Amino acid sequence: MPTPIDPAQLARFVAAAHSAPSVGLMQPWRFIRIADRALRQAIHAHVEEERVQTAHALGRRADDFMRLKVEGILDCAEVLVVGLMDKREPYVFGRRTMPQMDLASASCAIQNFWLAARAEGIGAGWVSLFDPQRIRELCAMPADSVPIAVLCVGHVEAFYAAPMLEEEGWDKRQPVAGVLYEDAWAAAPGG
Amino acid sequence: MPTPIDPAQLARFVAAAHSAPSVGLMQPWRFIRIADRALRQAIHAHVEEERVQTAHALGRRADDFMRLKVEGILDCAEVLVVGLMDKREPYVFGRRTMPQMDLASASCAIQNFWLAARAEGIGAGWVSLFDPQRIRELCAMPADSVPIAVLCVGHVEAFYAAPMLEEEGWDKRQPVAGVLYEDAWAAAPGG
Repeated sequence: MPTPIDPAQLARFVAAAHSAPSVGLMQPWRFIRIADRALRQAIHAHVEEERVQTAHALGRRADDFMRLKVEGILDCAEVLVVGLMDKREPYVFGRRTMPQMDLASASCAIQNFWLAARAEGIGAGWVSLFDPQRIRELCAMPADSVPIAVLCVGHVEAFYAAPMLEEEGWDKRQPVAGVLYEDAWAAAPGG
Repeated sequence: MPTPIDPAQLARFVAAAHSAPSVGLMQPWRFIRIADRALRQAIHAHVEEERVQTAHALGRRADDFMRLKVEGILDCAEVLVVGLMDKREPYVFGRRTMPQMDLASASCAIQNFWLAARAEGIGAGWVSLFDPQRIRELCAMPADSVPIAVLCVGHVEAFYAAPMLEEEGWDKRQPVAGVLYEDAWAAAPGG
């Protein structure tokens, strides 16, 4: 059994998330704490199915992928499913041409959660290996809500010195100069 | 003229953004610093068009909306256009069923930028009042890249004590209990 997280501590992380900025003050994020063990196991079983599907889709990197630790659903102290709320259509402010800004706001909230947890020595992982419809069914979510994350939260033996996927040789971090342009795409600053 | 931001300071904010976690270590974010004044003015003119369109779409709240400060493009020290990179399709890790995780990762990066700026007393605003195709044209972005933010960054006279849209009465902040469920949607913790 994993070391439990103090409920007050988890509440602080959720409060940090809920303090995130949001488009038009929409606050579109919803957090479902998974307390029921059977539900957690069902989520894990579905994520495992999608992990295998993803490995197939990756082709020649399938074996490398299958060796990576990409979720900790059964091992972590707390699992939270994060979703976009239902009835989002009336929210036009900042979303008329960019409806996906609800996801952007909810992602800011998850990043706040992540940093708040890390600041207290708690690790978090964002799992997106799932079919949204299946998670919707498992968590009795409305048809017009959207699950966006299965968060695994808990104490860790040690934090990685670099991103795990870099340490495992999955990919490299880009130099920051490679993601910064000036005035036009791919025109380097000062260039 | 706004008080300039030290380039090293702006570089720190971009570095904080670039330190964000990303799905499959994809690092899908790209930052375009708008140095050219005419380009900044063109972006502003387009955002102003979309602001008016949004007001129309809001119907009876149009006048309230038009009174809000929703951008500072001409007044701020720095404008950055943030976009999702081109050639994203091969990135299947964590995106086979959830392709929008690229936006989620880039939003985590922007939240990091926001917090890094705020920690140094610098304000930032995320403007999404634009037609992505028009911003793509203005910044010579590839057809398969996606602009997601016009960031206005700079010194501010004062920070708001509460979210500006709350202070202006646009909407209310929800109690945190309203966004936290247990095991199923809309089932309150302990309920």
